[in-house]
This record gives sequence, structure tokens and C-alpha cells, in this order.
Amino acid sequence: MKFSVTVTLKKDVLDPQGKVVGQTLKNMGVKNLNQIRQGKFFEIDLSEENSTKGKNQVKEMCEKLLANQIIEDFKIKITE
Amino acid sequence: MKFSVTVTLKKDVLDPQGKVVGQTLKNMGVKNLNQIRQGKFFEIDLSEENSTKGKNQVKEMCEKLLANQIIEDFKIKITE
Repeated sequence: MKFSVTVTLKKDVLDPQGKVVGQTLKNMGVKNLNQIRQGKFFEIDLSEENSTKGKNQVKEMCEKLLANQIIEDFKIKITE
Repeated sequence: MKFSVTVTLKKDVLDPQGKVVGQTLKNMGVKNLNQIRQGKFFEIDLSEENSTKGKNQVKEMCEKLLANQIIEDFKIKITE
């Protein structure tokens, strides 16, 4: 079973990496950019047929390692 | 209009970052992990009401800056 996880900075947390990308896009001529924010993306392949069990396991991975919940949010999706 | 972009390494490209995360998860006791691969994630907010135009613009950003198409693939989704 495959999962995708997106980890994004919480709304009020500064995103210097995104700021740089946004500035670069503006320098390249993009005029209608309001905001761009950067996050992380994980594709996880587990040997687990039960979707609830699998999702809980991925949730645990996020809480323990993949995301820093003080400044980040995460979203889990089942992809296969 | 808001878009989300995921940038992932192509299938046959080595992902050392993902490897390290995978090894760490295994060391933490995860036994059924087949693979984990890491990518990038962008949330883009554009002042553009036409979804086709907006999507094309985001595609151009990906091709020119956000993704290295030699080793990476990207996917664009309209989120709002």
C-alpha cells in the first residue's frame, strides 16, 4: 500500500526558502504571484493491506520523524 | 487561484535523502517499510482567474525553476 505525505510549514511560520523562490520568480518576470511556500513531500510504500492500520503507521512516522509538529502540519493520502 | 506542485525524483534516480529517512525509520522499529522517497512540495497562490492560463503559468515555473527535468518529474494540482 502506498501513501503520499505532504509536510508544510504552519501558516504563521516564516518560510525563507519559499521567499527566495518567490523573489526569483518575480525577477524572472512573473507578475501575478501572491505567494509561494515550500514544503516536503514523501512517497511511502508499506507492506500493509489494511488501509486504517497503514494510515495510522504513516501518521506515527510523521509525528516521530517526518514532521516537526511545532512548526509544521502534515497531510496523508492513500495513493495505491 | 491556488496550485499545489509536487516535485519528485524520477524512478531510476538515487534518492540519498529518502534512503537515510528509510534507514532511520527501520532503526525506529518500522518493519514493513518497502521504500520511502523524498520530494519537494510547493503551494503557489496566483492572481489569475483562468484555470488553464494559471496552470500553464505554473507549468512554466516548474520547467524553468522549480524542477530539474533531467532527474525530476512534477505534478500540478489546482487546489482553490
